[in-house]
Amino acid sequence: MTTQQLVTQIKKKQSFLCIGLDVDLDKIPKHLLETEDPIFAFNKAVIDATHHLCVAYKPNTAFYEAYGIKGWQALEKTIKYLNQNHPEIYTIADAKRGDIGNTSSMYAKAFFDDLGFDSVTVAPYMGKDSVEPFLDFKDKHTILLALTSNKGAFDFQTKTVDGKELYKQVLETSKTWENSQNLMYVVGATKAEYLAEIRQIIPNSFLLVPGVGAQGGNLQDVCKYGMTDDIGLLINSSRGIIYASKNEDFAEAAAKKASALQSEMKAILAK
Amino acid sequence: MTTQQLVTQIKKKQSFLCIGLDVDLDKIPKHLLETEDPIFAFNKAVIDATHHLCVAYKPNTAFYEAYGIKGWQALEKTIKYLNQNHPEIYTIADAKRGDIGNTSSMYAKAFFDDLGFDSVTVAPYMGKDSVEPFLDFKDKHTILLALTSNKGAFDFQTKTVDGKELYKQVLETSKTWENSQNLMYVVGATKAEYLAEIRQIIPNSFLLVPGVGAQGGNLQDVCKYGMTDDIGLLINSSRGIIYASKNEDFAEAAAKKASALQSEMKAILAK
Repeated sequence: MTTQQLVTQIKKKQSFLCIGLDVDLDKIPKHLLETEDPIFAFNKAVIDATHHLCVAYKPNTAFYEAYGIKGWQALEKTIKYLNQNHPEIYTIADAKRGDIGNTSSMYAKAFFDDLGFDSVTVAPYMGKDSVEPFLDFKDKHTILLALTSNKGAFDFQTKTVDGKELYKQVLETSKTWENSQNLMYVVGATKAEYLAEIRQIIPNSFLLVPGVGAQGGNLQDVCKYGMTDDIGLLINSSRGIIYASKNEDFAEAAAKKASALQSEMKAILAK
Repeated sequence: MTTQQLVTQIKKKQSFLCIGLDVDLDKIPKHLLETEDPIFAFNKAVIDATHHLCVAYKPNTAFYEAYGIKGWQALEKTIKYLNQNHPEIYTIADAKRGDIGNTSSMYAKAFFDDLGFDSVTVAPYMGKDSVEPFLDFKDKHTILLALTSNKGAFDFQTKTVDGKELYKQVLETSKTWENSQNLMYVVGATKAEYLAEIRQIIPNSFLLVPGVGAQGGNLQDVCKYGMTDDIGLLINSSRGIIYASKNEDFAEAAAKKASALQSEMKAILAK
C-alpha cells in the first residue's frame, strides 16, 4: 500500500486507529481454547467486529513466536485473511528486526514478500546497512524505532549524542538513507511532549504511536503535537481494545472500545 | 548451560568456535533440495561433521523465518537434534530481539523454554525493561548487541554519548541491570582494536564475536585483545564454514574449515 492510499483510507473512515493483535492464550476467552486454532479464531472475530473502525492491524510477532509452529501458522492465517478479505487495511508486522545487510534482506523478504505485510518495524542500533534492505521494497514501509513508549527509552534513546539526543540522531541520519521516503517512525504516546521537536526534523513522515490506553498515553496531546496536513499518525491500541472483555462478548466489547477511539479521532479531524 | 560448563567444554575441546547455521536454500548443495526438509538435512550433516570441533552453534532466525512454517519447523528440528544428541553443545538463537517488557517476556519464553536454546541475542535500543525479562532465566544467557561487525555500527554505536561512545554506555549501563551476571555481549571481530577498551569495562564477560572470515576479522587480534583467564570468547564463523563447498562433500569441506580454525585456537590456548 502506498502512503497516499493509506491517507485516503484514513479520510474515508475518519479514523487513524491501528489495532494491535497481541494474542495471549492466557487472556482470551476460555471458550475459544476449544477451537482448532484459538489465536486465529480470536483475531478473526476481532477483525470482523472492528475493521470498519480502524485503518490498520499490527500483530506483534513475539506473541506468535511464543507458540512455535502453531503461532506462526496463526500469523500466516491472520495476514492472509486480512489481505484477502480487507485489502483496504494497512498491515504492520511489529517485529523490531535488524541485522547485518544480507540477513536483514532475509527478514525483509519474509515479512514483505512471503507473508505480504505492508510494513515492518525495525530497530536502528545496527545502522544504515541493517535498515536499507527493508527500504528497497516498493510500496512497502519500514517503521524505524525512534522514541519508544517504555521506561527503558530513557536508558539510551534520550541520551545526548554529539550534542543531540540519540533518537533525534536516528531521525536525522535515517533521512540520508537510500529510499528514505519509505520510512515511518515509532514514537510512543507516553512521550507526546517530544512530538513538537520531532516534527521539526521529520515534518511529514507517518508516525506509529503505541502507548495510548494501557500504557497511559493521551490521544489529544499526540494529535496536538504530531498531526500533519495528511494526518501523519497511526495510533495503536492493543490490550485496551482486544481484551476489553474476557467473555463471549469479547469482539463486541473490542468494537465498542475501538468505536470510542474512532469517534474521538473523527472529532479531532473535524476541527 | 552455565558459564562454567561452557568454559569446561572449551578447555576439553580446545576450541571456542561457534558455527553459524545460516541456511540459504540458494547456497546449499542442489542434491539436498530433493530431500523432505533440505534445511534440516543440511544442518544435520554439518553438525554431524563438526560437533567435535566447536562448542556452539548459532542459527540466525532470519534465515528460518524467510521460509515460513517450513523454516520454523527446520529450526525446531535443529535445536531438538542438538539438545538430544549433543547436550554438551552451547546453543545461541541469533534473533536480535527486544521489545517492551511484557513482549520481551514472550520472546524469552519462546527461545528459552519452548525451543530450548541456551542463549539469545538481544538489541539494546529499548533499554533496561526490554532486556531484563530475558535475564530472568536461570542458566540461560542474554547476548546483548554492543559493537556489531557491520559498517552501520559507525552510524550510532560509536557516536559519543555524554562523553563516551554509545556501545560503552550500553556495556556500563547493562552492568547495573538485575541478573546482569547472565549477560554476554556481541563484539564484531572487524573491530578487534576496540577490545582492549571493552575489556576495561567488562573484564570477565563472555563475548560472541562474529565477523571472522567472510567479513574480514582476524582471530589472532581478537584473542590478543579480548581473551580472559576463562577464555571469555566465542568466535563465530558462518558462511566461511558451512558454504566451504557447494558439492556433495559440503559437510567434509565444512569440517576441514572448522578443523583449521580449531587448530589455530588450540595453538593460541597453548601459549
